[in-house]
This record gives sequence, C-alpha cells and structure tokens, in this order.
Amino acid sequence: MPMDKLKVLFHINETEKWKVVLGNIANLISNVGQKNVDIVVIANGFAVYGYTDPEKISIIEQHSGAGVKFIACRNSLRNMCQEGIACVREDILPSFIVIVEAGITEIVKRQSDGYAYVKP
Amino acid sequence: MPMDKLKVLFHINETEKWKVVLGNIANLISNVGQKNVDIVVIANGFAVYGYTDPEKISIIEQHSGAGVKFIACRNSLRNMCQEGIACVREDILPSFIVIVEAGITEIVKRQSDGYAYVKP
Amino acid sequence: MPMDKLKVLFHINETEKWKVVLGNIANLISNVGQKNVDIVVIANGFAVYGYTDPEKISIIEQHSGAGVKFIACRNSLRNMCQEGIACVREDILPSFIVIVEAGITEIVKRQSDGYAYVKP
Repeated sequence: MPMDKLKVLFHINETEKWKVVLGNIANLISNVGQKNVDIVVIANGFAVYGYTDPEKISIIEQHSGAGVKFIACRNSLRNMCQEGIACVREDILPSFIVIVEAGITEIVKRQSDGYAYVKP
Repeated sequence: MPMDKLKVLFHINETEKWKVVLGNIANLISNVGQKNVDIVVIANGFAVYGYTDPEKISIIEQHSGAGVKFIACRNSLRNMCQEGIACVREDILPSFIVIVEAGITEIVKRQSDGYAYVKP
Repeated sequence: MPMDKLKVLFHINETEKWKVVLGNIANLISNVGQKNVDIVVIANGFAVYGYTDPEKISIIEQHSGAGVKFIACRNSLRNMCQEGIACVREDILPSFIVIVEAGITEIVKRQSDGYAYVKP
C-alpha cells in the first residue's frame, strides 16, 4: 500500500524568513520526493513583500512549476500602505501567486483539511 | 448542510505580536462571520503583559464580547518576577481573561480537540 | 477510561528559544505528569547549536532520561558551515540525540501521526 501523501502548510509572516521557508521546501522535496508531498505556502503580513523580490521569485517560480502552491493574503497586500511602506499592487504579482481574501482563513481551513502547520 | 464551525487557537508568547494577533482575529471574523468560527487565544511568556495594557484590553474586551476566548498562563504570570520585571498579579486582570495553570497544556489539548494552531 | 496520552512536537529553529522550550517541557510534565504526555523536540536551523551547549545539554539529558525525545536535523548540522560559522559534527553530539536526515519531514510526519505542534 502506498504511503499517504504528506500535506504541509508553511506560514510565513516575516520577510526575512523566506530563505528558511524555501530551504525547508527544497529539503522536504529532496527527502521524500515531489510526488509524495503536497506543499502550500501562505504569506501574510510583511512576508507578502517576498513576492515582489526578483531573486526570491525565481526560486518560487521553480517550486511552483514543481507543484508547490504559493498564496498571498489580500488584506496584507492592502495593509502594507498603512504600515507607511509601499503598497503591493496585485497586478504586479506573478500570475502563479494565488491571492485569497484572508490568509488567516486559509491557514485555519487547510489545517482542518489535514495539512500539517509549519512556522519557520 | 452547514459548514462545520472552524476552530482556531492563536498562540502568542511575545508582547509585540499582540497587534498581529488582534488584526488576524478581526480579519478572520470579517471573512467567515463570527458565528462560523471558534477562536481561542493563549498567551504565555512575556505576552501575558498584553493583558495589562489598557489600549489592547479595550480591543480584547470587544472580541471577548463577540465570543473570542482569551487565556493567560499562570506559570507565566508568576515567572515575570523572575525575569526581573514586574509580576503580573492575577487580581488586576479583567475578569473575562481565563487563567489556566499551564498555558502549554492548553495549547496541546486544544489541538487534540481539533483546533488549528496559528503562531503569528 | 484513562485519558488518551497527549502528544506534542516542539519545533525550535532559533538558538535563543531553547530556554523557552525547556521551560515549556518542565511546565507541561509538572502539570499533566510525565506518563501522560509524549514529547518530541525537533531542532533545525541554528537551533541545532543548542545540542553543543553543556549547560543546555545537562537539562536536555535529564528530560531525555524522563522519556522526552530530542531530534537534530542532519541538513542543518551540515549547513552551519555554509552560514560561515562552525559546523556541528555529528560525532560530538551526545548519543541520546537522534539525528534525522531532514527535520522538516519529521515535523510533517509527526503531525500526521497526531502530534500537536508548538513553536515557542
């Protein structure tokens, strides 16, 4: 009988944690094999800025092509303006980034769907 | 058939994360509706200080009135003295704050009861 | 009927969080009793350095003797060299530290086995 596919949700809300998250994903896929794990990354808070960084996007795009799902919180994209830093406009994000209204809802629902939670 | 009620536990152990937690709660309720989500906040470590901050307490009290449960760890309240900062006396906390002996036990038990875990 | 044994996984990836993790473990065992909880600690990233600190190791060894399982991520041990700080050689770690190839895989699998996740 085949092993059940692993399911994991990475929650990132700090820009400086992207390196850790992307390293964890590479290690996980290398260790168990891409077809044996379902990986979702949810970025909210300041971490949504990671989606505007060309260096990170090139790694994110590779992972995305390998089936990793990357999600951005719309509330967070909007709130960046209020934090006194530049807003993140949705239309400048790469099309493989999925935007949800509230990242926090996605975090809760995924866990009730059996995803493990990891906060690097 | 109605959607199962979502259940989520916010774990906060750093004072400076209260703003994020309270924002997450507001976004979550706004997104799914108050009656569709069961929200518990467990503060341990330095985060118990949040319960003594009038500005935060006014927001916490509003959420509490809307059904969000706020919990403080008694071990943490006591330990604040040993950290060389002022103790937090239980009798100065608002009565809607629930005090448990060990916040960590509550964190583990809630997850075994099906609560999603979020660490902002 | 006896209470189901609690199961919890502590994830630590920052050296400075060891004090919190070890305090949480002591509080948890003191609160529910050693025989009622199954505790696993997974250290990856910089936190693997904790396993080389004599002061921490003496506490870790006591908890280990009481049944707490301590795990180190081999990827992280290796990566320390690349971070420009000293590598952590596996053969200098105490024998009660279990080394796994990828800590992140262990974190995901344990949760699918019913372990609660705590990130102090």
